[in-house]
Amino acid sequence: MQNKPIITLTTDFGYGPFVGIMKGVILSINPDVNIVDISHCIRPYNIVEAAFVIAESYKYFPKKTINVVVVDPGVGTKRRPILLATDHHYFIGPDNGVFTKIYQEYDKVSVIHVNSEHYFLKDMSTTFHGRDIFAPVAGWLSRGIDITKFGDFIEDYKMLDLPEPKRLSNNIIEGEIIYVDNFGNLITNIYCDETLRNNMDNVNLIFRDDNIPIVETYANGDEKKMYSLINSFGYIELFVNLDNASKLYDVNVGERVKLIFIDRNKIVHLKYKKLDLF
Amino acid sequence: MQNKPIITLTTDFGYGPFVGIMKGVILSINPDVNIVDISHCIRPYNIVEAAFVIAESYKYFPKKTINVVVVDPGVGTKRRPILLATDHHYFIGPDNGVFTKIYQEYDKVSVIHVNSEHYFLKDMSTTFHGRDIFAPVAGWLSRGIDITKFGDFIEDYKMLDLPEPKRLSNNIIEGEIIYVDNFGNLITNIYCDETLRNNMDNVNLIFRDDNIPIVETYANGDEKKMYSLINSFGYIELFVNLDNASKLYDVNVGERVKLIFIDRNKIVHLKYKKLDLF
Amino acid sequence: MQNKPIITLTTDFGYGPFVGIMKGVILSINPDVNIVDISHCIRPYNIVEAAFVIAESYKYFPKKTINVVVVDPGVGTKRRPILLATDHHYFIGPDNGVFTKIYQEYDKVSVIHVNSEHYFLKDMSTTFHGRDIFAPVAGWLSRGIDITKFGDFIEDYKMLDLPEPKRLSNNIIEGEIIYVDNFGNLITNIYCDETLRNNMDNVNLIFRDDNIPIVETYANGDEKKMYSLINSFGYIELFVNLDNASKLYDVNVGERVKLIFIDRNKIVHLKYKKLDLF
Repeated sequence: MQNKPIITLTTDFGYGPFVGIMKGVILSINPDVNIVDISHCIRPYNIVEAAFVIAESYKYFPKKTINVVVVDPGVGTKRRPILLATDHHYFIGPDNGVFTKIYQEYDKVSVIHVNSEHYFLKDMSTTFHGRDIFAPVAGWLSRGIDITKFGDFIEDYKMLDLPEPKRLSNNIIEGEIIYVDNFGNLITNIYCDETLRNNMDNVNLIFRDDNIPIVETYANGDEKKMYSLINSFGYIELFVNLDNASKLYDVNVGERVKLIFIDRNKIVHLKYKKLDLF
Repeated sequence: MQNKPIITLTTDFGYGPFVGIMKGVILSINPDVNIVDISHCIRPYNIVEAAFVIAESYKYFPKKTINVVVVDPGVGTKRRPILLATDHHYFIGPDNGVFTKIYQEYDKVSVIHVNSEHYFLKDMSTTFHGRDIFAPVAGWLSRGIDITKFGDFIEDYKMLDLPEPKRLSNNIIEGEIIYVDNFGNLITNIYCDETLRNNMDNVNLIFRDDNIPIVETYANGDEKKMYSLINSFGYIELFVNLDNASKLYDVNVGERVKLIFIDRNKIVHLKYKKLDLF
Repeated sequence: MQNKPIITLTTDFGYGPFVGIMKGVILSINPDVNIVDISHCIRPYNIVEAAFVIAESYKYFPKKTINVVVVDPGVGTKRRPILLATDHHYFIGPDNGVFTKIYQEYDKVSVIHVNSEHYFLKDMSTTFHGRDIFAPVAGWLSRGIDITKFGDFIEDYKMLDLPEPKRLSNNIIEGEIIYVDNFGNLITNIYCDETLRNNMDNVNLIFRDDNIPIVETYANGDEKKMYSLINSFGYIELFVNLDNASKLYDVNVGERVKLIFIDRNKIVHLKYKKLDLF
């Protein structure tokens, strides 16, 4: 027997009935599907946060998983609903840049403007396309409908300028905090590849003029003090052991962090996916 | 192969372990069931909110779905557990009026006082009937037990006086805010049927003495200003584009909203389900 | 057809993407598994709370359920990942005492130090073993891998000194509040077995120098006043009917509650699982 198709959901809907309603719509179309929540706590309207969250999450799901992302402040306007297919994954959501990091990651993607309205719910609203378009399209796709049936290929899909680390001078990189997790840990957009990871002893991490120690794991931090580490997704993260760094130091998304290479002869090229910063 | 039965859960339990425990009970009785959360963030003890939420949600699920609603401040008192069947849906919960809108919607419903205690958990508590009665009854019902086995038909089930729009004068309707969603949008109890929808240009919407513009969708609103629209469930909803209207203007459930028909010769009869207001 | 294996998840991760990622990992290993959330709102780093929550929840799930608990402030240190098997249940998590109550409940448990790294995710992190160890081990276990394959039996697993009621004098027991639920109800660690339950008329419950009435169920309480009852798990619980006792009286976890036996000739031995207090 073939495995059940998986549909993941990522929204800024919170935990009212709206996500449950989307699940009802999906199950009405394909009762034999496995629906998994990724997060419904994306900050409201925050496409950038959703772009990072889906990009770091989808990889952990089996191939052919259908990822529905509904962070959609432009619902009911002319922004297009799209279906994005890579060789191994599907993504469904609004064409507002929420899939920017997926486009960056893959050399080849197929993007379809979803306009075959017979796959939508009847009596479409202008305000809840999660229910009226994205859920039913995911349901039909999970039943094996070919992606070309949903609409027309496009190439002018929207890319966002996501907050990427900047090179401030020869040996200084500036990143910023892009996500605060449930523990109050502060995740930056500074990605450490293997080379940088092996050269962290040549780096000072500066936050609010303080040199923040870089350690292995949370338990290495002393009480109430800010530390940093390379987190499980490869990003530099600030934290306070057994405490909430965001609340304790009143830090939020957008604050800057600097990475300074001490020995200028040993500067490591900082890559983020396909970007070279040095 | 037949489709798996679906059981939905709607409670005011929040996200502690209580909902998970209900799922454990259901799966112990019927491992081959699909459990879907509608919401567990009903405001504590708020039967009225739960009545609206379940009434607007159940329709999106496949026929034969079993909807369990546990907002049950009278747990352990003489209030009865009930099982409600329409031609296409099942509902299980306390007889406290939480299914009022379902009764209003259907000409014919079967309501059973669930008193066949062999379908309950052994060692019943007086404080957690979600676990001890409603979950196991849903589990057994999903296994195909006939509804008549669960108890006796009743007709004196409890109806609530739900907040309905009132006619204040010849051309004025007063409604109220009944739900605040995750975005801070303010959903009123004023339902717009097709006729009213086509006559919105003859209507002024008044909130706190201001005339609130009625637009198509969220993105039509200017920054920080209150707007309104007919939402995806047909209700009038107040919002601030890309912001939280509830917090920005400090509005909460219960505040009044007026609908004034400008041309008195073109007053539209306001229906809510079977209620005529003019 | 055999029933799908069930994996439950209990964490302090909240509702960001981290739990969804764990589910993706599990489904990548075993697509044919039923994953159920118990709670992801354990207070961050609070092993004690997690120990109580899992101990009161797992019993409601079918036999052979695999319970994954990730409240793991020591992630990335030398604390061991363990797999615990009783005759009927499996538990996977860090060896930090989170399973203390399970050890107390069973005469015989098998505890394995999980060190067979081929069952872990490749490219292990030091900070997210929920994803890298606990989820994949649960996935493989659910596919029927024998527990002995995951590592070596140990007997020096960590036990915590959980907050247990203390005998203050001949006729006085002191317990404490260990959990605040979504309603603001205050659950103590004072467990009432059958004998105590039948002798509650010989008991005064003292909180902040007040004698708190002990009633049957929530609806028995008068407005705004603190009451108590024996809750559905057998613990003494303080509450305010239709209100939030925690907020109304500003009470939190750790506050003390006294149980005074009035007639000293009728003192009931207070048991907590295998502990005798008199």
